[in-house]
Order: sequence, then C-alpha cells, then structure tokens
Amino acid sequence: MKTNQLTNQSANYIAIMAGGIGSRFWPASTVDRPKQFLDILGIGESLIRTTFKRCLKLVPAERILIVTNKRYKALVLEHLPELPERNVLCEPSMNNTGPCVAYTALRIQSENPKAVFAVLPSDHVILKEEAYVSKLAQAFEFAESRGAIVTLGITPTRPDTGYGYIELDCQCEGGENDPSVGVCKVASFREKPDTQTAEEYVSSGNYLWNAGMFVWSVDTILKAFKTNAPDILNVLCQNKSAFGTDDEQNYIDKVYPKTENISVDYAILERSDNVFTIPSDIGWSDLGTWNSLHDYLDKDDNHTVTLGEQTHLIDTKNSIIRSDSKKVVVIKGLEDYIVVDEENALLIYPKKDEQEIKQVVKSLL
Amino acid sequence: MKTNQLTNQSANYIAIMAGGIGSRFWPASTVDRPKQFLDILGIGESLIRTTFKRCLKLVPAERILIVTNKRYKALVLEHLPELPERNVLCEPSMNNTGPCVAYTALRIQSENPKAVFAVLPSDHVILKEEAYVSKLAQAFEFAESRGAIVTLGITPTRPDTGYGYIELDCQCEGGENDPSVGVCKVASFREKPDTQTAEEYVSSGNYLWNAGMFVWSVDTILKAFKTNAPDILNVLCQNKSAFGTDDEQNYIDKVYPKTENISVDYAILERSDNVFTIPSDIGWSDLGTWNSLHDYLDKDDNHTVTLGEQTHLIDTKNSIIRSDSKKVVVIKGLEDYIVVDEENALLIYPKKDEQEIKQVVKSLL
Repeated sequence: MKTNQLTNQSANYIAIMAGGIGSRFWPASTVDRPKQFLDILGIGESLIRTTFKRCLKLVPAERILIVTNKRYKALVLEHLPELPERNVLCEPSMNNTGPCVAYTALRIQSENPKAVFAVLPSDHVILKEEAYVSKLAQAFEFAESRGAIVTLGITPTRPDTGYGYIELDCQCEGGENDPSVGVCKVASFREKPDTQTAEEYVSSGNYLWNAGMFVWSVDTILKAFKTNAPDILNVLCQNKSAFGTDDEQNYIDKVYPKTENISVDYAILERSDNVFTIPSDIGWSDLGTWNSLHDYLDKDDNHTVTLGEQTHLIDTKNSIIRSDSKKVVVIKGLEDYIVVDEENALLIYPKKDEQEIKQVVKSLL
Repeated sequence: MKTNQLTNQSANYIAIMAGGIGSRFWPASTVDRPKQFLDILGIGESLIRTTFKRCLKLVPAERILIVTNKRYKALVLEHLPELPERNVLCEPSMNNTGPCVAYTALRIQSENPKAVFAVLPSDHVILKEEAYVSKLAQAFEFAESRGAIVTLGITPTRPDTGYGYIELDCQCEGGENDPSVGVCKVASFREKPDTQTAEEYVSSGNYLWNAGMFVWSVDTILKAFKTNAPDILNVLCQNKSAFGTDDEQNYIDKVYPKTENISVDYAILERSDNVFTIPSDIGWSDLGTWNSLHDYLDKDDNHTVTLGEQTHLIDTKNSIIRSDSKKVVVIKGLEDYIVVDEENALLIYPKKDEQEIKQVVKSLL
C-alpha cells in the first residue's frame, strides 16, 4: 500500500542524515545517544530538533525524511513527534553516505519522481538562519531548473585543516534576477589539507568549506548513480516496487547491507561535472570536536566555556566544562582542558590532545 | 524501664564516636552521609562498620555504643544491623567531645557503675589490628586496676603538623608480667606544632601522636568531670534517673544543648594528672584529609591512588582519583590533583590547596 500518490508536480523534500554515532564527543555522546540527540549547546533542545525546525521553514514535516540507523528510530520519533513514522528511513547497516543517499532518492522517487531534495546533516549549527533558508531555497530552484548537483559551500573564516574544501571553477554566473546569481561551478573537491595548503586555499578566495549539504532532483541524482556508482543502484533496485510500501523495511534490511561502503562525495560528487556550489555565509559550524564547540560558544573572562548550572571555577582558563545541571562542579587550576561529566563517564583531557580521545575510548569500551 | 540490670561485676564497654560531619572530604562526604559512613578506602565496607567489627574482638555488640548526631541514627543502624537500637546515643546538638563523653559515662553507669569503657573514633584506619586489640585490652586492664585515664599514643612516623602530640613523663614502667609494661605517664598534651617543633618532637623520641582513643572507668571519668568540668555534670545530672530508661532521649534533648561546647581533651585530659599512655605501633591513620588518604593507600607507578574500577589514567601523577565503580573515568595529564566524582558533585582540585576546599564548599552550599 502506498500512502502517497505519485504526482506530476515537483515538490521539495529534505532528508536529514542522522545515523552518525558521534564518537568524538564522548562521553557526552555515546552509541546509545549520539551527538545529534544531545542538547550540546545547552539551549534546551537537541541538535536534530533544531535542524528539523529549521527545515520546517522550507518544507512541511510530511516532506522531511530522517535517515538514520535502525537503533535510533525511537529516539528520532521522541525528538520529532511531529514527524510521520514512515518518514524515518532506517539503515540496517552503516554503509556511509553513498548507499544512504541512493536509498533516500529511491524512496522519494516512489512518492514523487519529479521531486527535488536536499541532503543535510542533523548535527551542525547554523547561526544565520535567514541566510541559510534563502540559500537553500535558491539551491532547490537551481537544482531543479538546471538538473544540477548543488552544494552549499561555506565561506571559510580560517585555514581549518579539519574540513574538505571545494575549489571554484569560475566567477559566479548570472544576472541580478537570475536564480543562478551567486552560484558557482565546482572545479574539484579537495580532501582535508595540511596547514600551509589550507592557508593558500583561504587567501586565494577560490575555495569554500564542504559542509555536506547537497541539493538535487531525484532524477539528477539517480542518473548520477547510474553513471558513477551503478552497483549501488543494482543492489537496491532488485525489487524497486518495494519502495514506499509496507514491505520497504524488510526489503532494505535484506539488500542494503550488500551495497558498497562509500561516501556520496567520493561516489558521485567527485565524479560528476554538473556540480555547482552556492557560497554561503550562514554562521555554520559542524561542531565536530570539543574544540569547535569551545570556539563556537560564549566564553567567560578566562576564555572558558561552561555548560552546566552549578559550576564553580577558580583559576581555570581556556577550557570547556560540561556537566549535568544538577551537579555541583568545583574546579581549580585547570588550563586548556576539556572536562565532560556524564552519568556514566567522566572525561578530563587536555584540549590539545582531543584527537586522541576517540582511540582511548575505543580501547576502553 | 531499664533493659539492663545493674551489676557488681566490672565489664568493658566501647563507645564509638560517630557524630562528625566530615566536611573536609567533600564531595565524597556530605552532611547527609559523612565520612564514617563511606567506603572511603574502596574495600566494600564503611569506616564505621570496619571500626565496629574491630571492636567486636574486644566486647560483644550489646556493649558497644555509637554516639552520634540524631540525624545519623538510621544510618548507624543501617551500617550496623547487629547493634541494639538503644545502643545508639543521639546528641541533639554538636557540643564537642566533652559533653559527649560525660553523657556516655552516665548511660554506661546506669547499666553498670563498675564498667570500664573506651572512647574511639569511628572513622580512623588501623592496619595492625592484632597489635591494636592487644594494646586496647591492656588499656582496659590498666585503667581498671589503676583508676587511670589511659590513651593510646601513636608512635609517630613523620613530623606531622596536623596532629596533637602527647609528651611522655618517664620511661615506661613495670616488669615483664605487669599489665603496666609499656605504659607511660603523660607529662602534657601539646597542640598541633609548627614544622620545626614537630621535627624536634619526633627526633626526641619522647612524643606520641594523640589519636583520640581513651580508656577509663565510669568512676574515674565521672570523678574527673566532677573536678575539672563540674558544670557539664550539673547540667546532665538534673534528673540522673532518666539514663538507661525510655525517657532518656527526651531528657537529653532538653538538657544536652545547654552543656558547654568543649573537647574532652581540653576539659579533662589536660587538667588531670593520672593520665597514662600506651605507645602503640598499630598502623594508624586518621584519614583526615585527601592527602592523608593519598599517603595511606597503595599507589601506582605514577604515585597515583585510584579508587574506582573503571579509571583509565594517562600521564597522571601523584594524584588521588575517586569515583563510583560504575563510572568510566578517563583522565590525561593531571599532576598533584584530587579528583572526586560523586553523584551530585565533582571536585577537581590541586592537592596542595586541599585546605581551601572546605571554605569553597561552604560558600557554595
């Protein structure tokens, strides 16, 4: 039984990717409750809920899909009670974003073959929401009118070595009333650079950060898969009529784990030539690390970020201290530290060594 | 109704003092659950229970009294289920050890006027239990036969400035089969000394640590109160027949708060001349501070004490780390720190500044 009618009218959809297990934010983030489900900014709302509410400014809840791991389905519905249950797409295995996007495209195709959809991360922060909504709306329009693959590229504010970069091919095209104003052709995608290269990228003005935000039509992306990653489609399309039916989950549980583990960046974007980017100054942060959270949040006179309501600091500098609001925390003399106290775990770690945490925790758990 | 018969036979009693609120061990120790009720050594047993079990080697549970603040009665009975409820003596106010010992003496007198009793702290550690039991047995015997006030004096192992000292008056008296072998007359009690004085004390070999462990007969100590602190007795003996009856608590609630707030050391010991001490090498620690706990417990190769079962330390030196056994703790790079994680509070504090903690916490709570 299909619950949505096929239509000849195009419609915009948004797929929010929420399958990550966020191992870098341990112990705040755990496999049982990864980063996207946390109120990591201390604003009283999880990142996924903030993302969802932002998306509602562009499309109704019925056209928002959450793509996540099976084990997080209940958490998704708990955080987003407005979301129809069938809009949670459950991956039975973690096969990276390539198969994930293909599955999403096939589901949306079953509802509306003319749809255009965005793929967005669930756990990033956007400070300039109005600019963001406007850039995304433009991306939808450009993707539909040109049959293009569109990404939002973030105007870099520092030579960060933690992000991939988008190299621009040309000046932005179009005239003032053209939807292509401010849209640039992409020359190439670049992996995370070393410091010197990052500095060159940023000073050249010809590079943007790749924030993992994509917009394309069902038609465009499925054609791109057919050309560049046909095996994924072959596996997923053995019984194409299952998409959008009550049988979909059973079917996906069987075939999805057999798809290649590959990112959509590598499988599609780097191999396509109709890729465009919209330079976007939207106050973006991927909040990928405790350090990025420290950079992002308000600091006290000692350059320390406190998330927690009963924290008493003495001579504690340039640190980030996160705890449950019910917990009294007394700290003296720490400098350049991450302190994260959760119900089941406590982390006290030098900020500069943050990248080690993932390995340490892996060896422990 | 008296539940115990008066008798003409002497009997040994032990009164364990358990009224302290242990503010120095915050956040492990709180007013709701002070140090004596904690398994502060991580051995699966609270300090008061260890103390109680040690005392059972000298007297039966029926002759062990716990003297504590009213609010801890339920906790005492929870930790010592073998203890008759009437053996918990409840102070309605904190008036220091002077009135506390007088009340205890009057209660024991109501059961057995010929009794000899020891007064012992509830929250100290004794490593050499056999030596301890033997020294206490000797103290009971000497106190009864000589009508003396007897203390156990701890052979000092370092010039500690945190303890009071007992100055010896003479060489130890008696022949080999005399109960007074190894018993010394006390010349004076000395307050906590400065470092130089402490060094002189220890090198002279003529001083012991005062560990607050006393033995005396009911008769001896009540006479000493009559001579040296008669006001306390006057207040408590307005209706002496209340002791040992169902009316005792009501009576004590009324009169006890009117007694002078004074230590038994100051009220009695420093003013008496029949005071003796038994030099005791019993592996004693008062565990008065996190630092003393650090000194006392087994350390790893980095001189760090860990209390907790899932603690993972990297480059962490000369520290003490205490946490719940269910909690995963990951720490890197701390040196000379106290880390104590409790359900409601987290402390991360330099060891050298430990004496500040009490004030910091006071200002917070």
